[in-house]
Amino acid sequence: MAGTVTVPSASVPSTPLLKDELDIVIPTIRNLDFLEMWRPFFQPYHLIIVQDGDPAKTIKVPEGFDYELYNRNDINRILGPKASCISFKDSACRCFGYMVSKKKYVFTIDDDCFVAKDPSGKDINALEQHIKNLLSPSTPFFFNTLYDPYREGADFVRGYPFSLREGAKTAVSHGLWLNIPDYDAPTQMVKPRERNTRYVDAVMTVPKGTLFPMCGMNLAFDRDLIGPAMYFGLMGDGQPIGRYDDMWAGWCMKVICDHLSLGVKTGLPYIWHSKASNPFVNLKKEYKGIFWQEDIIPFFQNATIPKECDTVQKCYLSLAEQVREKLGKIDPYFIKLADAMVTWIEAWDELNPSTAAVENGKAK
Amino acid sequence: MAGTVTVPSASVPSTPLLKDELDIVIPTIRNLDFLEMWRPFFQPYHLIIVQDGDPAKTIKVPEGFDYELYNRNDINRILGPKASCISFKDSACRCFGYMVSKKKYVFTIDDDCFVAKDPSGKDINALEQHIKNLLSPSTPFFFNTLYDPYREGADFVRGYPFSLREGAKTAVSHGLWLNIPDYDAPTQMVKPRERNTRYVDAVMTVPKGTLFPMCGMNLAFDRDLIGPAMYFGLMGDGQPIGRYDDMWAGWCMKVICDHLSLGVKTGLPYIWHSKASNPFVNLKKEYKGIFWQEDIIPFFQNATIPKECDTVQKCYLSLAEQVREKLGKIDPYFIKLADAMVTWIEAWDELNPSTAAVENGKAK
Repeated sequence: MAGTVTVPSASVPSTPLLKDELDIVIPTIRNLDFLEMWRPFFQPYHLIIVQDGDPAKTIKVPEGFDYELYNRNDINRILGPKASCISFKDSACRCFGYMVSKKKYVFTIDDDCFVAKDPSGKDINALEQHIKNLLSPSTPFFFNTLYDPYREGADFVRGYPFSLREGAKTAVSHGLWLNIPDYDAPTQMVKPRERNTRYVDAVMTVPKGTLFPMCGMNLAFDRDLIGPAMYFGLMGDGQPIGRYDDMWAGWCMKVICDHLSLGVKTGLPYIWHSKASNPFVNLKKEYKGIFWQEDIIPFFQNATIPKECDTVQKCYLSLAEQVREKLGKIDPYFIKLADAMVTWIEAWDELNPSTAAVENGKAK
Repeated sequence: MAGTVTVPSASVPSTPLLKDELDIVIPTIRNLDFLEMWRPFFQPYHLIIVQDGDPAKTIKVPEGFDYELYNRNDINRILGPKASCISFKDSACRCFGYMVSKKKYVFTIDDDCFVAKDPSGKDINALEQHIKNLLSPSTPFFFNTLYDPYREGADFVRGYPFSLREGAKTAVSHGLWLNIPDYDAPTQMVKPRERNTRYVDAVMTVPKGTLFPMCGMNLAFDRDLIGPAMYFGLMGDGQPIGRYDDMWAGWCMKVICDHLSLGVKTGLPYIWHSKASNPFVNLKKEYKGIFWQEDIIPFFQNATIPKECDTVQKCYLSLAEQVREKLGKIDPYFIKLADAMVTWIEAWDELNPSTAAVENGKAK
């Protein structure tokens, strides 16, 4: 079928896919021992490590990995006053890595995520699955009941319009988690022992017009198509909120993908999420978000981007203005966030002058 | 969790769920030997058999099943001139069974569908899974990445608004098929040997605003909530089209569910679809539909139902008028179909005087 991606079926492909076109972005405050487990899959790729917290601390990276590492001093030096848009003491700092990457694709993963096994007991090469997801089209305009129609052994079912079978370009691939599910603090507290043991063998497109909670733990995207929308907001140190960085990026990104007719997938691959974060600490970080999201989500559900916005940057700046105007009424934090969204785009364009000049997204 | 349905885990529950509140509707032209395989699961329930084709033929039903059977003569006698809305020589005739049922729930299944096995080798009680789907809420307003949040071992993920966690009432449960997938004639022709072998262990809500191709092979619904929208249209004998009966019902039903804030689920349960229908015969039935669906789907994507329509019947009559006005321009068939949609509602209300008088759907 048109659009099917043929990928070697061994978990460690002899020639790693997109070896020179993908960066792995990892935010961390500790030594990266977790990379040992990922070595067979990650070693061929370049890593961008964003060190959060005390820049004087030395982060150890296992031997043999090709990486660049940025701490807070580096971020301040590179961005100058615009560094204010990059969060501190929060994994939201990872988006600095998206900005300095020079590659077409980014995969980002948390340092408490390990290699999961599929039901046959085989190690899951999460990165390879993300690449498959990104290189095959999405189906945002109509729902296919047999899930990803581009996968081997599947197709579009009866009643699926033929004009839509080419699908849309895929901008984002959102992977899931076995073991510790990505729950909020209240759910963690109510169900402290719940583990996700269900391996759902599916990849699906999040339909156009539908928002979803995007988790940053196990996520890949096409920088050229959607990079400037992947801003993880102002969280952590000095901010009234945390743990909404990936959610914020997901809502902004999805509205822009819908506007530019780009696709977003969720499902496979799974990673093994090793340990639950402290629900009491999480509740403190989240509690304003828990209130605010009741307004934020209707805001994004109703947000429309003007037709003339034909690049991700233009779309994002339009959203920033809407955030200022509509969410600014809820709390002054959103005015600060809207300013930071504008700064983020300025910084992005400064570090990515070639993509700033050309058309992004739809027009590409 | 609120909304979780506790159901015995054995495949044959000692007390069958909803035994006196559910009818099984089967359209057929042949002896119902396929029921032997379903006996452990179906025998406690009442069957409504709609005999298509020659009414002089005798359909044999295996011993021990409780059933009523209607042939074309019965349909003509019961509905009089309104029988014109019920298709002949097409499985669309099944919707007559929905109309004469006196139960709250309907499960409909084709006579070439057998019991499938789950990955552990256990027989799947499809009916039990449909009932679980119908008795637990749906989540049409926001997407949950871990699929059905009401299922044991799952929940709403971080970033899911708390105000939406009660979900919506579930009106429809759409099950899938192992072995022969539900492909259209062109896809059958291109991939004659494709079989669906992937068991995806998930139930999900089709988001609000998203249309999907509803297949009538393995389908359950809440008659009280959505029954009058489950009209399978004019197909088969004397009509220019076939094999779009369930699609038509699915599109109408989904637009109405979205309007009334009702939920539609798809995924589990699987049945084993035993044999592919003849793709050449199918192509003849389908080819007009293949063209027309290119206009029909945008029509339904853009259809809006006036606020004052607060029953399924009112919604359906509004849709019928829109079909007449907008799709009537494509082909006179749609004028005839719009007339039949009105006749269907008249016939429904005649046979269901109590539900005709009370409010359906949202207002209930």
